Amino acid sequence: MAGTSPKRSPLAPPGGFPDLPRVPGVRLAAVEAGVRYTGRPDVMLAEIAPGASIAGVFTRSATRSAPVLWCQEILAAQTGTTDGPTGILVNAGNANAFTGSHGMAAVHKTAAAAGAALGIPAQHVLVASTGVIGEALPAERITAKLGDLAAGLAPDAWAPAARAIMTTDTFPKGAAQVVEIGGVNVTLAGIAKGSGMIAPDMATMLAFIFTDAPVAPDLLRRMTAAAAGRSFNCITVDGDTSTSDTLIVAATGTAPLPQIGSARSAAGRAFAAALEAVMRDLALQIVRDGEGATKLVDITVTGAASAPAARRIALAIANSPLVKTALAGSDPNWGRIVMAVGKAGEAADRDKLSIRFGGLPVAEAGWVAPGYDEPAAAAYMKNDEISIAVDVGVGRGRATVWTCDLTHGYVEINADYRS
Amino acid sequence: MAGTSPKRSPLAPPGGFPDLPRVPGVRLAAVEAGVRYTGRPDVMLAEIAPGASIAGVFTRSATRSAPVLWCQEILAAQTGTTDGPTGILVNAGNANAFTGSHGMAAVHKTAAAAGAALGIPAQHVLVASTGVIGEALPAERITAKLGDLAAGLAPDAWAPAARAIMTTDTFPKGAAQVVEIGGVNVTLAGIAKGSGMIAPDMATMLAFIFTDAPVAPDLLRRMTAAAAGRSFNCITVDGDTSTSDTLIVAATGTAPLPQIGSARSAAGRAFAAALEAVMRDLALQIVRDGEGATKLVDITVTGAASAPAARRIALAIANSPLVKTALAGSDPNWGRIVMAVGKAGEAADRDKLSIRFGGLPVAEAGWVAPGYDEPAAAAYMKNDEISIAVDVGVGRGRATVWTCDLTHGYVEINADYRS
Repeated sequence: MAGTSPKRSPLAPPGGFPDLPRVPGVRLAAVEAGVRYTGRPDVMLAEIAPGASIAGVFTRSATRSAPVLWCQEILAAQTGTTDGPTGILVNAGNANAFTGSHGMAAVHKTAAAAGAALGIPAQHVLVASTGVIGEALPAERITAKLGDLAAGLAPDAWAPAARAIMTTDTFPKGAAQVVEIGGVNVTLAGIAKGSGMIAPDMATMLAFIFTDAPVAPDLLRRMTAAAAGRSFNCITVDGDTSTSDTLIVAATGTAPLPQIGSARSAAGRAFAAALEAVMRDLALQIVRDGEGATKLVDITVTGAASAPAARRIALAIANSPLVKTALAGSDPNWGRIVMAVGKAGEAADRDKLSIRFGGLPVAEAGWVAPGYDEPAAAAYMKNDEISIAVDVGVGRGRATVWTCDLTHGYVEINADYRS
Repeated sequence: MAGTSPKRSPLAPPGGFPDLPRVPGVRLAAVEAGVRYTGRPDVMLAEIAPGASIAGVFTRSATRSAPVLWCQEILAAQTGTTDGPTGILVNAGNANAFTGSHGMAAVHKTAAAAGAALGIPAQHVLVASTGVIGEALPAERITAKLGDLAAGLAPDAWAPAARAIMTTDTFPKGAAQVVEIGGVNVTLAGIAKGSGMIAPDMATMLAFIFTDAPVAPDLLRRMTAAAAGRSFNCITVDGDTSTSDTLIVAATGTAPLPQIGSARSAAGRAFAAALEAVMRDLALQIVRDGEGATKLVDITVTGAASAPAARRIALAIANSPLVKTALAGSDPNWGRIVMAVGKAGEAADRDKLSIRFGGLPVAEAGWVAPGYDEPAAAAYMKNDEISIAVDVGVGRGRATVWTCDLTHGYVEINADYRS
């Protein structure tokens, strides 16, 4: 893989990497460190003004990587904003996962070097790694570049930072929102990587979002978890779970506003909506860059016993290889959706089940819809953005998830990419 | 699909369909009814001597087909062996699933016609259907052939019966055991279909096993459920669950033996072992015929917190698209196995995890095994039968599951087979 440049996804945003605004209190830098790739940036450093609120959401994998364990430890030990992390160091090409005791030693070494370069303790540096699993991280290639990184920190370095964290991604991912809160413009901007919800060798989904909003640490944690639950945790490419998924949100609080302390205040609601919008934008870019993807598909389940039940049914549909191959073939194969609903393990009334593709009724009351127009459905399925709506007829639970199709491209990318 | 004849799986047993022994008290017949296919048998009838013990295991799908609901109702209402089913009617090409009220009406019509042909009530006829979902079953094409079927019943018609239940299968599946119990030879013989553990349009796995052993009805039910749990429920091609999975075991009791009433007796143990051997043989034939499969893979997990936990971890590995594409590419990509263990949601000690491919140590104590020989591992992965062993280091739970690889062939078969 090193040095190759995979073809840009056909679902990539046409305009290229967006022009992201500066976030007061945040500077970034990227360098070529040659961790695994050559000829491209592969290490990113972010510096956050002291006193920021920091929140993190991580993979629930039982085989979490050393960097994930390090971040969880740091964030759990944090008691306020004064002892919070102010550095984030990220490398691509090596996940530093499943590397025994070497793994945490490499984290300590790189965090200490980043801390020295930034003039802060190692314990104030969050670390993330993405790439192959099971190979020792060449920490010295990273530490050798920390002087250059610290010297190069700049408020506009979004594009090189977004490129430095890519693995099998075919395009860099960034998103921003500017929202007026209490008469002040507040900025949120972030970058992400992840092609394949999870391509665990190139493990995996990383996202870093920065804002100058002043948000109380506890509230930021709750809002981050909630927004992740409706964005990053509602996308799936292949249902696999990485050792390394990491989402960090840093709020510098430099915007001239009273601290946002309540989710119910107008300021809290406005900030939460903007945060979720940035996360959803990044999450959908990840699905668009799903390995081999040719279609972006949203699946909305209604009428479930609860919202979590709706989400599980939607994910059962989204992760079904038979549904995903039918999507690849533009086949309006609603029988496979019936099957996936059935296997989800959640309540569904077979005789009230209805399915729509786009606006087209496909199934109703447990059978093919009266007047079902298969040629129209087949024509609809040829679009590169597809909406599937399923009502399971038992309650009021509702959820939407996003996925992509399962194509020959997925098999090609994954059947032998290490060689 | 109608009329086409897919290429025989490269993993098909080289000898062709086995020469199955007669089972006293059982006769079978198959005909071409043109339910969907032409030029091949597509309806099968089995007649079982009165007084048999019958056991069934069915899909747990919430969108079960009408035939499954019918069988479950009949078997639940059965109070002994005198009112038990003595007929089994099966068609391929149409699953009679998700067909609204039409579905059960078609079951009643075909069961009544089969009952009339066999001289028994409709309630003594079990029915199974496999094929496309959501299309009305053309019941009259089946009922028109019941006279021919009843007239053609014969004790040796295993091969045509096995062919009549095929859908996307590339070869017919049969297995038998003859076991001496109390000085008497007892026969078990069965047929199955299912290519893709689950190809839900061509829904799905069906298996019918017959024996002349005299087994108490309750014991037969318990033994059938237990053996299915260690065979059919331990195979997976794509993790999808059908609307129609059906396993029926019929024990005519004509062998001159005292009734087997205890699982702990020598006779009970011998019969249970033979039953499980037949089921495992059929189950592995189904995996060998997995859609697009080029490799048969067994995955054994040890050291789990419990046997069910071991099975869940093994299935997480077996169903991971990333593991399955690595297998397709003969890539000894053990990082993906670490990932799959991590996502299973079961206890695992990352720092005690070990992985072996065949006899080769790959990972040990949470990292690559000392002396790991990647070229040897890569050479091993080129075999068409592969064993993966994983110890997760927390307990004594153990399970084995079987799967196949995820290839371009799978995408080809499923991306557009309806058109």
